[in-house]
Amino acid sequence: MGLIVQKFGGTSVADAERVMNVARIVTDTYKQGNKVIVVVSAQGDTTDDLIEKAKEINPSASKRELDMLMTAGEQISISLLAMAIQKLGYPVISLLGWQAGFVTSSVYGSARIRRIETDRLQSELDQNKIIVVAGFQGLNKYDDMTTLGRGGSDTSAVAIAAALHADRCQIFTDVEGVYTADPRKVENAVKLNEITYDEMLELATLGAQVLNNRSVEMAKKYNVKLEVLSSLVRKPGTIVKEKVKMEKMLISGVAKDTHVARISLLGLPDEPGVAFQAFSRLASKNINVDIILQSIGRDGTKDISFTVAEDCSAEAEEIMNEFVASVGGKGVALDNDVAKVSIVGAGMETHAGVAAKMFEALYGAHINIRMISTSEIKISVLINEEDADKAVSAIHAMFIG
Amino acid sequence: MGLIVQKFGGTSVADAERVMNVARIVTDTYKQGNKVIVVVSAQGDTTDDLIEKAKEINPSASKRELDMLMTAGEQISISLLAMAIQKLGYPVISLLGWQAGFVTSSVYGSARIRRIETDRLQSELDQNKIIVVAGFQGLNKYDDMTTLGRGGSDTSAVAIAAALHADRCQIFTDVEGVYTADPRKVENAVKLNEITYDEMLELATLGAQVLNNRSVEMAKKYNVKLEVLSSLVRKPGTIVKEKVKMEKMLISGVAKDTHVARISLLGLPDEPGVAFQAFSRLASKNINVDIILQSIGRDGTKDISFTVAEDCSAEAEEIMNEFVASVGGKGVALDNDVAKVSIVGAGMETHAGVAAKMFEALYGAHINIRMISTSEIKISVLINEEDADKAVSAIHAMFIG
Repeated sequence: MGLIVQKFGGTSVADAERVMNVARIVTDTYKQGNKVIVVVSAQGDTTDDLIEKAKEINPSASKRELDMLMTAGEQISISLLAMAIQKLGYPVISLLGWQAGFVTSSVYGSARIRRIETDRLQSELDQNKIIVVAGFQGLNKYDDMTTLGRGGSDTSAVAIAAALHADRCQIFTDVEGVYTADPRKVENAVKLNEITYDEMLELATLGAQVLNNRSVEMAKKYNVKLEVLSSLVRKPGTIVKEKVKMEKMLISGVAKDTHVARISLLGLPDEPGVAFQAFSRLASKNINVDIILQSIGRDGTKDISFTVAEDCSAEAEEIMNEFVASVGGKGVALDNDVAKVSIVGAGMETHAGVAAKMFEALYGAHINIRMISTSEIKISVLINEEDADKAVSAIHAMFIG
Repeated sequence: MGLIVQKFGGTSVADAERVMNVARIVTDTYKQGNKVIVVVSAQGDTTDDLIEKAKEINPSASKRELDMLMTAGEQISISLLAMAIQKLGYPVISLLGWQAGFVTSSVYGSARIRRIETDRLQSELDQNKIIVVAGFQGLNKYDDMTTLGRGGSDTSAVAIAAALHADRCQIFTDVEGVYTADPRKVENAVKLNEITYDEMLELATLGAQVLNNRSVEMAKKYNVKLEVLSSLVRKPGTIVKEKVKMEKMLISGVAKDTHVARISLLGLPDEPGVAFQAFSRLASKNINVDIILQSIGRDGTKDISFTVAEDCSAEAEEIMNEFVASVGGKGVALDNDVAKVSIVGAGMETHAGVAAKMFEALYGAHINIRMISTSEIKISVLINEEDADKAVSAIHAMFIG
């Protein structure tokens, strides 16, 4: 009994049969006496198809027109889902982002939600209707359609849950919840019943790809109780909240990210300000740097290594080539065949020896550690890409089973 | 030099190549110093594809949700055309129906345009932008998407031309203009340089299908100068206006309509009010009756024959069966294998003998006339469907060549 926001991604509404499946989940929740708002993304390949059409005509079209094109995708899926819910005999209405009151910043392609004007949502809820809202989209101050960028539908769902003080925000995916490792790769991976926002944030950042980071940050900020669960199997999923009851497990997950690259700047002059100059050049091009390692200076020179996302490694290398030449360094080395493996767990804060145990697991599997980075609830190591799956299994076996 | 509204149908923007072709026509008009507003329909098969998706999920979905679904079609085509115009290097913006200020009645599926709030259109024109507007759609008082029904994009274009006092409204099609007969069937069919609104209305009603009736009515009411022309061949088309300069030709067109059926009510009592009762029953079911013929009463009974559109002939037959039984008539006969062939021309008003000439042509071709109907600028005959093409050719040869 309460207000529940449910979010379904593009795969969940890819065809007529799946749309009907979603309609059944939604109406079952409604039947139990809840008010329900459903947020959906565009159907399966719609977004890719639309991008393809645009590229064929103009590969450098303005983002304003791309957003106009893209937002048609969710318009199709919300109306189809509403029709499916009508077929099951329940009162329903579909609303576009702007009809649901999403006011965003003006930046096309990656707009931020400024606020939700909840009048229409509230009035439709008061009429006991199930509401189907187009995720990923809103309207800016020019009265133009905007999109929220990657993972935008998760953020739309959390924003509605926050604005209307919903009792729960359920994010439906093709997995049954958050696991200690990728269940398709690690046999003993365990589904977590609960996880904290902070752990979830670290896992999202690490590429576990269950939940979008922005949505978890927003859920944390407004204290929205999230649940990650399956749209295919009817079972409780994983609850994401501020504090979890039990901390039986030291770590809540092992994740790998193979889309990283390592760049090494060799033979830089060992002077103050060199690192600052290097990283400010990258920052000015919006290239994010993750793990950083600096060698101890020797013979008046030092080396700096860092990791970046693989898809901007070529650009980063070019910028660094210019930089190293400008300070009289020896050269730049790029390695794309690396992977980052991380363990995350709020339990780490109060337990010593977690890092040692992780390194022991890697040593036992004969895996060489090339870089290390730690935070209060996370330890990441950079290793060769070919060792990534083996590393995840070894670490998982050591900590979880 | 002026403001020109151009309308392109779904076939004209069916793929990337055609979208680029439309972009070239639009930008050529802009280059000549005109302000240009373009109205487009959904791409080729988009509307049918969307209807198919809806039917698969719920064949009896609400019209509100169907309109939500359908309006995504034009959203795709306007953004793609805007991208194509950007590629050619011209300033452009795409606008949805509601962004262009289309306020409609609430009826989903066949809404009427109440007014156009022209602020946004005017402001974009002031910035010298080409504006691409989604045809066929608007917003009702509930802030919900509506569609205008059949031929809605023509009406959208004429409405904008009327609201902004455009110098011309160009309707682009796949023919070069309005012809005296279907040029694919009648060899000597002549393209008209000019035609009056009234003649165009008669031709549209007769199924010439060049222009939608509602749009011609609106153009007449607001005195919008229409031009029907080809999107494939760059030539002047046919101008539709209040009065045409020359009336060299007696008739402006020969048209056929094979989607008609004849219903005969046999042996009705020859009393006052019988015809009224029959036709009011049909009217209450929204069935339009066209040509009506009543026999002279004999032996206290009379027969009434009339034509209806073929797709409602079965329903009409059923209603008439009940009616004839209720008044003690003899029976109902339905004939779907008939066609209506008509000649239209403002010149008829001042020329005698047009009907006689038409009947002569039919007699010469050995075609039997089953019913006749005349108005000031039109003569229609009902004949057997198999004779329709032969009749059009014979009449065209007699009047035009």
